[in-house]
Amino acid sequence: MKLLRFGPLGSEKPGLLDADGKIRDLSGVVGDIADEVLSDSQLQALRQIDPASLPLVEDSPRIGACVGQVGKFVCIGLNYADHAAEAGMDLPQEPVVFFKATSAICGPDDEIEIPRTSVKSDWEVELGVVIGKHTKYVSVEDALSHVAGYCVVNDLSERDFQIHRSGQWVKGKSCDTFGPIGPWLVTRDEVPNPQDMAMYLEVNGHRYQDGSTRTMHFDVATVISHLSQFMSLQPGDVISTGTPPGVGMGQRPEVYLKPGDYMELGVEGLGVQKQKVVASD
Amino acid sequence: MKLLRFGPLGSEKPGLLDADGKIRDLSGVVGDIADEVLSDSQLQALRQIDPASLPLVEDSPRIGACVGQVGKFVCIGLNYADHAAEAGMDLPQEPVVFFKATSAICGPDDEIEIPRTSVKSDWEVELGVVIGKHTKYVSVEDALSHVAGYCVVNDLSERDFQIHRSGQWVKGKSCDTFGPIGPWLVTRDEVPNPQDMAMYLEVNGHRYQDGSTRTMHFDVATVISHLSQFMSLQPGDVISTGTPPGVGMGQRPEVYLKPGDYMELGVEGLGVQKQKVVASD
Repeated sequence: MKLLRFGPLGSEKPGLLDADGKIRDLSGVVGDIADEVLSDSQLQALRQIDPASLPLVEDSPRIGACVGQVGKFVCIGLNYADHAAEAGMDLPQEPVVFFKATSAICGPDDEIEIPRTSVKSDWEVELGVVIGKHTKYVSVEDALSHVAGYCVVNDLSERDFQIHRSGQWVKGKSCDTFGPIGPWLVTRDEVPNPQDMAMYLEVNGHRYQDGSTRTMHFDVATVISHLSQFMSLQPGDVISTGTPPGVGMGQRPEVYLKPGDYMELGVEGLGVQKQKVVASD
Repeated sequence: MKLLRFGPLGSEKPGLLDADGKIRDLSGVVGDIADEVLSDSQLQALRQIDPASLPLVEDSPRIGACVGQVGKFVCIGLNYADHAAEAGMDLPQEPVVFFKATSAICGPDDEIEIPRTSVKSDWEVELGVVIGKHTKYVSVEDALSHVAGYCVVNDLSERDFQIHRSGQWVKGKSCDTFGPIGPWLVTRDEVPNPQDMAMYLEVNGHRYQDGSTRTMHFDVATVISHLSQFMSLQPGDVISTGTPPGVGMGQRPEVYLKPGDYMELGVEGLGVQKQKVVASD
């Protein structure tokens, strides 16, 4: 099942993608793709609905982030061996955890705003994991049963803010529009193996990232279990699991985003994001 | 005006403290102490209400976090010169920013849970700032007009998780119950100078922290302006502005929290928090 949210920013409606790739309006059934709607039982109830019985969305609305009311936007750093090497960092002994601001979340095709003083805005295609139920001290074996589904995330990162602005990474990770999520939340029954998904990212038609979750250092189950030792996770929390090689900082010479650039990125089975880069006003 | 939230965790009602220190029920007037209720105009409307006209809360309910629906829980590290020294860190050139998980938020007198594998759970009394309106690229001069009010925060911190668990601080800052906020949101008109407020923290009756916001390195206005260059702030975002000297890590020998301990902490004019320490189940 592919769930999504459509409509203007801040007033998105819930929807699902039917077999023809058309959007069906779920707003008569659930209030949002969020919170308890992400539980196994409620997702199962949605599967029982014949999509043809739902109103067809005729026009081509804006697509919003595929999950609403996100409480935590957790990211894993340096989680692909080759990316750690290109970043000049050692591969970590355990998952490196940081947060992006939830106010950075936007739709998959929204414009990306380069912050006023940015000189090093960079891209990172990542596999996103959406939590479906309360998770605390969960074992690696049980961890994937806490996943509602998966989505594409672009973990945009301002490298100068991240690295040279007094310590923690948060300043470079939390700028407005630096967290496109979606287009779809693909429920976990449709993702046979989260550790075997191709992923790519192109800027202006040039393919910079071309990887697979196969080379992820700490796998999804390990990441969820590890996080749950330090904090509880709630339905709707999003975990972005790290990026493969090919970020702008890793190019020689380095390449960064500028207004007018165009990004396209995807993860196998989870859809594609397309973003125009603009200057922040 | 002193606003608060009372009742069981997750279903708190809004209230205000009357001149006799009694709680008046605001749930007939506003839905929550959150979001647009924190705007200047809505706060002004609440001031027009005669507290005696509101239902008196007769019993002694649990007090919740004084603000609801917190989108971001932002913290400033090493923001008192003497605390940076006791932590063995240089005073930063610009504010050090990190996030606590919003799932760490709890009421001011709730039990504090020591995580299962914790050996170094520590305390930090801090001045909390609650944002009242959308804030982006704001100047230092205008920054305080974006504040709804102030509150007490205990920025609990697991030092081993924070420092020795792969890089970023988030693992040691985000444990459940590691973010008591309140008891009151004191609106900014009742805080004549946020840079002249005494603050203290005691564990088992011993006063470990005894400071003042006078010795804050980057003041509240500077912190807000600085943050707003990197991300937008929304109504209900909470900024905890750093702690004065006297944390457990700074004692010789070091002192950390253990089940059965009892904390009391306060900031001048903002009320007192009292917390019993327990083991996480």
